[in-house]
Amino acid sequence: MKEAFPGVGKIAYEGPKAKNPLSFKHYQASEVVGGKTMAEHLRFSVAYWHSFRNMNADPFGVGTRQMPWDDGSNSIENAQSRARAAFEFMEKLGVPFYCFHDRDVAPEGNTLAETNRNLDAVVKVLKEEQQRTGIRPLWGTANLFSHPRFLHGAATSCNTDVFAYAAAQVAKAMEVTLELGGAGYVFWGGREGYKTLLNTDMRREMDHLGRFLQMAVEYKKEIGFAGPFYIEPKPKEPTKHQYDSDAAACYAFLQRYGLTGDFRLNIEANHATLAGHTFQHEMEYATAVGLFGSIDANRGDMLLGWDTDQFPTDLYDTVLVMLTVLRADGFTTGGLNFDAKVSRESFEPIDLFHAHIGGMDAFARGLKTALAIREDGVLGGFLKQRYASWDTDMGREIESGTLSFTRLKQYMIEKGEPAANASGRVEMLENLLNEYL
Amino acid sequence: MKEAFPGVGKIAYEGPKAKNPLSFKHYQASEVVGGKTMAEHLRFSVAYWHSFRNMNADPFGVGTRQMPWDDGSNSIENAQSRARAAFEFMEKLGVPFYCFHDRDVAPEGNTLAETNRNLDAVVKVLKEEQQRTGIRPLWGTANLFSHPRFLHGAATSCNTDVFAYAAAQVAKAMEVTLELGGAGYVFWGGREGYKTLLNTDMRREMDHLGRFLQMAVEYKKEIGFAGPFYIEPKPKEPTKHQYDSDAAACYAFLQRYGLTGDFRLNIEANHATLAGHTFQHEMEYATAVGLFGSIDANRGDMLLGWDTDQFPTDLYDTVLVMLTVLRADGFTTGGLNFDAKVSRESFEPIDLFHAHIGGMDAFARGLKTALAIREDGVLGGFLKQRYASWDTDMGREIESGTLSFTRLKQYMIEKGEPAANASGRVEMLENLLNEYL
Amino acid sequence: MKEAFPGVGKIAYEGPKAKNPLSFKHYQASEVVGGKTMAEHLRFSVAYWHSFRNMNADPFGVGTRQMPWDDGSNSIENAQSRARAAFEFMEKLGVPFYCFHDRDVAPEGNTLAETNRNLDAVVKVLKEEQQRTGIRPLWGTANLFSHPRFLHGAATSCNTDVFAYAAAQVAKAMEVTLELGGAGYVFWGGREGYKTLLNTDMRREMDHLGRFLQMAVEYKKEIGFAGPFYIEPKPKEPTKHQYDSDAAACYAFLQRYGLTGDFRLNIEANHATLAGHTFQHEMEYATAVGLFGSIDANRGDMLLGWDTDQFPTDLYDTVLVMLTVLRADGFTTGGLNFDAKVSRESFEPIDLFHAHIGGMDAFARGLKTALAIREDGVLGGFLKQRYASWDTDMGREIESGTLSFTRLKQYMIEKGEPAANASGRVEMLENLLNEYL
Amino acid sequence: MKEAFPGVGKIAYEGPKAKNPLSFKHYQASEVVGGKTMAEHLRFSVAYWHSFRNMNADPFGVGTRQMPWDDGSNSIENAQSRARAAFEFMEKLGVPFYCFHDRDVAPEGNTLAETNRNLDAVVKVLKEEQQRTGIRPLWGTANLFSHPRFLHGAATSCNTDVFAYAAAQVAKAMEVTLELGGAGYVFWGGREGYKTLLNTDMRREMDHLGRFLQMAVEYKKEIGFAGPFYIEPKPKEPTKHQYDSDAAACYAFLQRYGLTGDFRLNIEANHATLAGHTFQHEMEYATAVGLFGSIDANRGDMLLGWDTDQFPTDLYDTVLVMLTVLRADGFTTGGLNFDAKVSRESFEPIDLFHAHIGGMDAFARGLKTALAIREDGVLGGFLKQRYASWDTDMGREIESGTLSFTRLKQYMIEKGEPAANASGRVEMLENLLNEYL
Repeated sequence: MKEAFPGVGKIAYEGPKAKNPLSFKHYQASEVVGGKTMAEHLRFSVAYWHSFRNMNADPFGVGTRQMPWDDGSNSIENAQSRARAAFEFMEKLGVPFYCFHDRDVAPEGNTLAETNRNLDAVVKVLKEEQQRTGIRPLWGTANLFSHPRFLHGAATSCNTDVFAYAAAQVAKAMEVTLELGGAGYVFWGGREGYKTLLNTDMRREMDHLGRFLQMAVEYKKEIGFAGPFYIEPKPKEPTKHQYDSDAAACYAFLQRYGLTGDFRLNIEANHATLAGHTFQHEMEYATAVGLFGSIDANRGDMLLGWDTDQFPTDLYDTVLVMLTVLRADGFTTGGLNFDAKVSRESFEPIDLFHAHIGGMDAFARGLKTALAIREDGVLGGFLKQRYASWDTDMGREIESGTLSFTRLKQYMIEKGEPAANASGRVEMLENLLNEYL
Repeated sequence: MKEAFPGVGKIAYEGPKAKNPLSFKHYQASEVVGGKTMAEHLRFSVAYWHSFRNMNADPFGVGTRQMPWDDGSNSIENAQSRARAAFEFMEKLGVPFYCFHDRDVAPEGNTLAETNRNLDAVVKVLKEEQQRTGIRPLWGTANLFSHPRFLHGAATSCNTDVFAYAAAQVAKAMEVTLELGGAGYVFWGGREGYKTLLNTDMRREMDHLGRFLQMAVEYKKEIGFAGPFYIEPKPKEPTKHQYDSDAAACYAFLQRYGLTGDFRLNIEANHATLAGHTFQHEMEYATAVGLFGSIDANRGDMLLGWDTDQFPTDLYDTVLVMLTVLRADGFTTGGLNFDAKVSRESFEPIDLFHAHIGGMDAFARGLKTALAIREDGVLGGFLKQRYASWDTDMGREIESGTLSFTRLKQYMIEKGEPAANASGRVEMLENLLNEYL
Repeated sequence: MKEAFPGVGKIAYEGPKAKNPLSFKHYQASEVVGGKTMAEHLRFSVAYWHSFRNMNADPFGVGTRQMPWDDGSNSIENAQSRARAAFEFMEKLGVPFYCFHDRDVAPEGNTLAETNRNLDAVVKVLKEEQQRTGIRPLWGTANLFSHPRFLHGAATSCNTDVFAYAAAQVAKAMEVTLELGGAGYVFWGGREGYKTLLNTDMRREMDHLGRFLQMAVEYKKEIGFAGPFYIEPKPKEPTKHQYDSDAAACYAFLQRYGLTGDFRLNIEANHATLAGHTFQHEMEYATAVGLFGSIDANRGDMLLGWDTDQFPTDLYDTVLVMLTVLRADGFTTGGLNFDAKVSRESFEPIDLFHAHIGGMDAFARGLKTALAIREDGVLGGFLKQRYASWDTDMGREIESGTLSFTRLKQYMIEKGEPAANASGRVEMLENLLNEYL
Repeated sequence: MKEAFPGVGKIAYEGPKAKNPLSFKHYQASEVVGGKTMAEHLRFSVAYWHSFRNMNADPFGVGTRQMPWDDGSNSIENAQSRARAAFEFMEKLGVPFYCFHDRDVAPEGNTLAETNRNLDAVVKVLKEEQQRTGIRPLWGTANLFSHPRFLHGAATSCNTDVFAYAAAQVAKAMEVTLELGGAGYVFWGGREGYKTLLNTDMRREMDHLGRFLQMAVEYKKEIGFAGPFYIEPKPKEPTKHQYDSDAAACYAFLQRYGLTGDFRLNIEANHATLAGHTFQHEMEYATAVGLFGSIDANRGDMLLGWDTDQFPTDLYDTVLVMLTVLRADGFTTGGLNFDAKVSRESFEPIDLFHAHIGGMDAFARGLKTALAIREDGVLGGFLKQRYASWDTDMGREIESGTLSFTRLKQYMIEKGEPAANASGRVEMLENLLNEYL
């Protein structure tokens, strides 16, 4: 087979002063920082769909991307060649993981059975390539949103047959993920929501989704898939409202349906901001309630109201998020999946390298900077001092539940007014962050 | 005492053709519709703070409102006169309820004890006025956000003394609400959140808030307050992020801290839209998870990013929300509280009447229109048909949990492709809604 | 040729109590209100692209619409059949106008010459259908955004050849619009902007766009096209920023390049709100600066950040906008073009009727309500009184430019403080609006 | 007089490795970079209102700031002490400029005459302090928005007396700015807009504003004020819509009223983002149309919909904006005014130093980074190549206006399809930017 990316070799680390745009300035996979290699810390993953299936059409124009390895056909052979091109890319880039939807890797057939056979035919090549390269899935998932059958939702469709189809499709996708040694499995409910409440029974639809995920847990045990399930929150787009709108909504849902033991969250930067939260907020919340799992590493445009899925290059984001990841003791089965696409204007194959290199270097800097901040203890020290009153007897008694309103009322009636507050030093801390950049 | 609103008598129902702006065109308290009087359906309430304390300063200018009954001083006497003016207004308007914060009705003293005495002195007048008029609190609450002591939060402050002060203040506010016969008690956590995550331990702060509310429940039982507690979701403003960001976040929180039995939600229209949801969405969600309680009836400006707290006059909102209220079998202890302020440009006393009359008429139309839609069964019938497959054997089996992925997989492999979907008829339903306006 | 919409006859006016969803409740083309027929007032137009070319794919799923008259091919024959289906629809609906892009009606060929021949072949059918039905273009336009050649813009491309191609394409589109008797010609610069300023010379690109439009004016005169040119403002989507971002930006641009005499604005509701303005604001601004031209009648979702292009059913919008249209003495060459699409969930052919009927009835009510408000003089009277001081000598002298700061300073130093302001009566006016709905 | 900031000396440059938060890590006033000292490049200014008048109340709470030098009274003496505290701060900080509103520096009296006398009394002290320190106004302005008399606007008020008052006030503010040697004069129309279009005659109000500014130009010449006028765009807040909504709207306005020769723009970062634009966009637009003047250096929170006026610490902003400033050949009379406030949580006097130091260091880094990027020619070179076709004969002929649609049509009909586009390299350029940080 012809090389898909001729003229590009393995991307090398050349250090921060290098002028070669096709080199890493900061990411060095084998470099040990904070007790682990950078590869172990960051667990980078390529998103099969954006990098190898998305032609970058937008609502006002057709796709522009050049993919010389792809003949544009819907054939199995083309899907297999494409898989080989993807592995060539990942190998040259030096990432250990990829993520995929079932329908990214193989074409739909006329029936579910045929579709499953198509999938098997391509999975065979994926396995060969995995064996050859050592690259494996960070997670797999099922596309339950592109086909018209899902126009009213999948697990939340008003049509039971569609629910059944989704169940069958997820079962197969889980099997395939298991077969490929995927480290986890993701649920993103792109159509699980509504266009208008005028035609929607929200309560019933949420119950159906709850039952669907319970069945998925049962099936996971049945087939022996040991990796975690992730829900990926997103508030809207394509629908008017998605039930998994943000980390808190997912947590409410998982508690309601008894699923907190089996699910974690896959936090996406762009979904966070669409929900009105910062990336860091969603990460902190997930960590606080014990649901931190994996990350879809990208970036939105804060002035555009849709999922722009840009490559993550904002160093503020990468530092703050790596601080949270480190505080959560790092990834276990999760990782940093580049759920990001090159711009429609960046349509040449080489742009795919530029984009990923930029994202990887940005996270490498984020990691090193976060480690430096932790080592110096500057933020941790400030926090310890700020909450010091909670580490006194009174703080401990409140936290342990031994104090009541009655007791606190007496205390404060006697005291009259609380001890003075200290400045929160917001600007000093913001300056401090800049000093580490 | 001099009349506060001379020249304005009791606002009368004059019917839809009346040209008198100081009359109701649609709201007639005693008119029976759908088996109850309109007063019983709508349970209108005046917000003491906006109508009698808010001078309508904004971040770029001082207040403009004319309140001839208020001498501008911080004296008990002035607070008592103001209370009488408020009851004159409510009586002339014909609303059965009001809502208040402790600090709205009485001034702070130099110590908590003095502040409590101030409060008692005004509560005495409120009771007299209640007895005279029959008007009583829909709910009471404590202002835990205006004073500088709360600058880092109240229950989530980094300062345990502030937590204690908040506890003492809430205890007193609950006692006062009980004394005044309030139907419920509200928690709005305006400062329970953060300005920056750089100085915040989110997990610890949420635990403190959880413990605070648990203590409140204990105290409620202790003093014999039988009404419900409400949390009022809001995502931001004044802080960067508030922990009670939307109905789903509140539900997650209440489940986490074992509080779902003791709390319901007080949904505010403008808070819903600041959270990126429609008013109707938050109402439907609260109803779906069994947390529907009460409503802060107002309206935001969808192009302005802050809490404009405008009076609710959008008939689409009032119809859609009353549909949800009726489906939830109406209010029990809750009601429609006008958490709304006149515009800074509408600064004369009479504007307070215009504003409330408009809001009351808008909800009266909303109620009647919703009843008509329900009577004709047009939306309900469409919904029944749309989800018909869920009322078959297969639907019931999925809902009852007797089907598994394995069984559904077999079913769909045999069938190949789901039964066809039907149009969701989004536009037809939107037209239908217009036909009822 | 087979009927495209079998079983649907001409949509009739059946009055507000009719239960038939396929009837007009308010729009009666021949009814005379305010001195003109409703058809003359409203000048409705169908958007060829949304109604006959848009399959309603979204960024997460393929199209869903059923168009049995369309064989899905790119042939001339199919384009001609589609044109006949469109005219059948418009005739049954009873609209006098349609709008089109060159590429909506006919397929691209391999060269510009071939593409132009394709266009001519379909224009022939359009002319036959126009003759048969009397329906004609409200305006024509050129699609300078869908094809990859325009990925860096058309008139603002960094590639002069693309500028030249765009010029050639617009010239042909203008000729075709002239041939079809189109009442106007529209420029929407969907790609005339930037993705990132890092690779953009904004000044140079704006100059190119200015020159392009000057050439278009020259060509218009050359070929004898007498109708007006319109610019259609939009701030973003598909690009990060479009140079024609809102009405004010267009006015700045037209003044800069000496084009105010030849251009008016085509205001779209959804583009207005994406720019952070109300629909009414953009209409009022365009009217205030003498640029009011035509309307793209649709509606966005205020909580979604992209162009949802929903059918206009909000009666507040239609009343307020028709008030502006009436104050501007109505449309001359412009009209109400439904630049709107059925929901992806409303995929059946009949939904196209529901959608347009809803939009037409909403504007018919808007028109009648606006006429009633004007007849009663309630808003006009309030305004006259509010600005009364400007109709005194002092007001007139300021307006005519005969007063200076020096004179006004003397005046106010003597007076000390201005005459008192009166309430702006915001809420009373909002109530008034509701009384007319 | 007692020191206002005891224990803080002159802030010194200590270099990037310094751990002292009260030192500059990057800003060194006298360091020459790119041919000028950093002080000459950056022309920093302190905003008197935020730093010395704003107690940081927010809509839900009273102010929190500690200002021990301020006795809280409205006396002239207090205003004079405050002025001395401000100069102590600016001197210790080492900034050469400040900006002020008339009402910031001196209290209102009962009449305009008394108010003017108050102002004169404080201006006397300002002049002494200016003489002592060499610090002078970057610009002055009049506060035409805080007082209730301006509730319906100032130049756009429906009340001619308010227009006259505003004229008198601006005349005095201009005189004072002249007396103090201010480098420019700013117009920010915080109330020049509307709350609702229902009570507004937009056309008439814009004409009044136009006339007002024409009179201001006449008066400027009369009194011999040689500095430029600036308009500061802002789209909303406090009003629903402000007429000077963004740079483009200001340009449209200035052209309409013949004012482009006398006005430039004062671009504020947070106002840009409230208008839906990036800070850089507004800067580039102002530069492109020849209106670049001065900068209000701050930062908004992209997820909060109001003017947060945070200190500018985002290095991406400072680099990109300094690139534009350098391309525009730097400031002449303008500069970088910190229109920013410390957080309500950062209420101690020392926080004022932290905040300004952070902003100054961020812009110092922005300047140095921008100079490095320019020196290497990386962005400029890319741009030159990208637009290369415009530097050919055809490009030049289009730009010079000698080509017509007819000629371009012939050219393209012959050629068939444009020369191929090249990738816009969006991601590569974003990576490049990171390499310089």
